[in-house]
Amino acid sequence: MADKERMDYTEYFADVMRIMSSKGLLLATWKDAGTTANAMTIGWGMIGIIWGRPIWQVVVRPSRYTYQLMEREKFFSVNVMPKSLDAALKLCGVASGRDRDKLTDAKLTAVRGEGVGAPVIRESVIHYECHVLHANDFIPEAMIPDIRTGCYPSGDYHRIFWGEIVDCRVDRARVRELP
Amino acid sequence: MADKERMDYTEYFADVMRIMSSKGLLLATWKDAGTTANAMTIGWGMIGIIWGRPIWQVVVRPSRYTYQLMEREKFFSVNVMPKSLDAALKLCGVASGRDRDKLTDAKLTAVRGEGVGAPVIRESVIHYECHVLHANDFIPEAMIPDIRTGCYPSGDYHRIFWGEIVDCRVDRARVRELP
Repeated sequence: MADKERMDYTEYFADVMRIMSSKGLLLATWKDAGTTANAMTIGWGMIGIIWGRPIWQVVVRPSRYTYQLMEREKFFSVNVMPKSLDAALKLCGVASGRDRDKLTDAKLTAVRGEGVGAPVIRESVIHYECHVLHANDFIPEAMIPDIRTGCYPSGDYHRIFWGEIVDCRVDRARVRELP
Repeated sequence: MADKERMDYTEYFADVMRIMSSKGLLLATWKDAGTTANAMTIGWGMIGIIWGRPIWQVVVRPSRYTYQLMEREKFFSVNVMPKSLDAALKLCGVASGRDRDKLTDAKLTAVRGEGVGAPVIRESVIHYECHVLHANDFIPEAMIPDIRTGCYPSGDYHRIFWGEIVDCRVDRARVRELP
């Protein structure tokens, strides 16, 4: 954390999208009043400006443990991991944090972000702290059939969480460790 | 058009966000079966990956003429204009295309995009052709009060249009003409 410096939210966008769609990013939320955190691997998301504010938009299915944490917590973080931690990233993508401490299993550490105190993965190279401004849902009937059948065979439609990027940081010395 | 080459959808992201929030971008749709187009200046939007596809997300208020065109048409384009066309961009931000041909007034030309035939502004430096995959709405009750009162005093909540980026191009020689 101490080695990270503030960056503009638009920096490394091409890398972040490439890594998100190949390896995944870690979406982290507090599990209990800021002591233990949970993280889920995400492959989809968007960055931009809405309501005049920089936004990270993440989507979470209701069946995920992260869903109930996102509904409860005001803050989350998105973390871009170095390639040396591929195995940890995979573990966070298959296990559920409902009955175990996934981050400890994956040998990752959650620390309080310097921006708004969201749980940030210490080992990440880039992280964004976000404040949930809004949540809404996809509407099955307003979706092209290809996506409805291809992405939602069991009807587990994502909720969309709109997080204002209140702080984002990069460890410039470790950018070369990105996948 | 002939001078534009295909680019990756992540290219020039920082420029596009900066220009969108300062000058605006042009969101264009066909008005009538591919002969006349309409364009509206937008200041908000997001780029990323959802459903495994590259997406441009634009938001349009129901009161706008573009709203009914977006509801009807399958395709739209987002255009990044050179700084020499600031006045045209302003005109498209204040006038409505309901009762006039805004693009002609602004001395801009709509041409059929080489990707999926969306109307593309010929004078743009960068453009994205997009296919509407989904549309959904913001939920007033699920929004922080600051935004509800600050952005929607009259209750004119945006509809969100999720457009797959099927083709995006840049005129490399004119990138230096961006604001």
